Amino acid sequence: MDSVVLDVDTRRSRIVDLTTSVGDFCAGRGDGLCSVFAPHATAGLALMEVGSGSEADLLDALERLIPRDDRYRHRHGATGHGADHLLPALVSPSLVVPVFGGRLALGTWQSVVLVDLNTDNPHRQVRVSFLGD
Amino acid sequence: MDSVVLDVDTRRSRIVDLTTSVGDFCAGRGDGLCSVFAPHATAGLALMEVGSGSEADLLDALERLIPRDDRYRHRHGATGHGADHLLPALVSPSLVVPVFGGRLALGTWQSVVLVDLNTDNPHRQVRVSFLGD
Amino acid sequence: MDSVVLDVDTRRSRIVDLTTSVGDFCAGRGDGLCSVFAPHATAGLALMEVGSGSEADLLDALERLIPRDDRYRHRHGATGHGADHLLPALVSPSLVVPVFGGRLALGTWQSVVLVDLNTDNPHRQVRVSFLGD
Repeated sequence: MDSVVLDVDTRRSRIVDLTTSVGDFCAGRGDGLCSVFAPHATAGLALMEVGSGSEADLLDALERLIPRDDRYRHRHGATGHGADHLLPALVSPSLVVPVFGGRLALGTWQSVVLVDLNTDNPHRQVRVSFLGD
Repeated sequence: MDSVVLDVDTRRSRIVDLTTSVGDFCAGRGDGLCSVFAPHATAGLALMEVGSGSEADLLDALERLIPRDDRYRHRHGATGHGADHLLPALVSPSLVVPVFGGRLALGTWQSVVLVDLNTDNPHRQVRVSFLGD
Repeated sequence: MDSVVLDVDTRRSRIVDLTTSVGDFCAGRGDGLCSVFAPHATAGLALMEVGSGSEADLLDALERLIPRDDRYRHRHGATGHGADHLLPALVSPSLVVPVFGGRLALGTWQSVVLVDLNTDNPHRQVRVSFLGD
């Protein structure tokens, strides 16, 4: 199994498109499974359309579902950081994408994105691995 | 890695049981991982009990969590279509099921289902792949 | 593909940390993918921090998102059991963790936990499988 760690900067956006990087890593490989894994307790990975407003819609929805307020028992970090720790239970940090002929079998409108509500640490890593025949 | 694409018709139901098709594809194979993947930006895959009311319960819950109204920035398609695009962040379109002796290692009450709230396109595809020893 | 079934007792807690057991199973193996799979219709698996309050926060959040009341069509079992059956659609019972040199590639604060709101059956199983090069 081959693997690479992507360095992701979340300063500019809470949702970062990783599709090109993940696809580049798989290019030239054969058929197999691509594991995308965020080794963080406040990040998730999603497959979604980007560039048509859904990123902001998702952030709004997450604010409704797990509001970043002071209700949480987990109280390290800034107000609302407790909510960040619930994100990966709803948006898992582990994703598997099938690969054929070195190409991710994504649909036309699917992108692989990192979702990270946590503004305290803008330096994130995502591990991409390929296990093939 | 062997693979098949299932054609799924969502006209009759927003939740479609794929268990038999996925199981048939894995039958006769040995031990390995079965990837089930929906290459769509408005669909998810779930492992749940079917036939006891939970399908309707899930649709009700999703309507509460991501209401199909006009609040969304993503405005292509019918009213509420913005919600469809949030579904895969909460109900991932990628699922892995272990297989032993050509049988899915599902629990007694688990079925593999496609969840697709989007009524605009009733023709969906689901890719099923097997990676074994 | 090698595999083991963990017996999990959920009597003391609705969220049970499986990290040590999953890690022990992978120890001594090489590089590959570890599938963690709960063969139950009312359980999910999450990657989250434990021991800092987030377990209770997650249970509170799930009670808000899928309240354990009498609104559900699924009416077998105790009041609220219908909600238990929605859990795996939001918190999937299938998880894949990459493994390198026999070690789970988890982040510092990530644990693998079983989430099971169902108090009717405290005996749960989780299947852990390893598929490597």
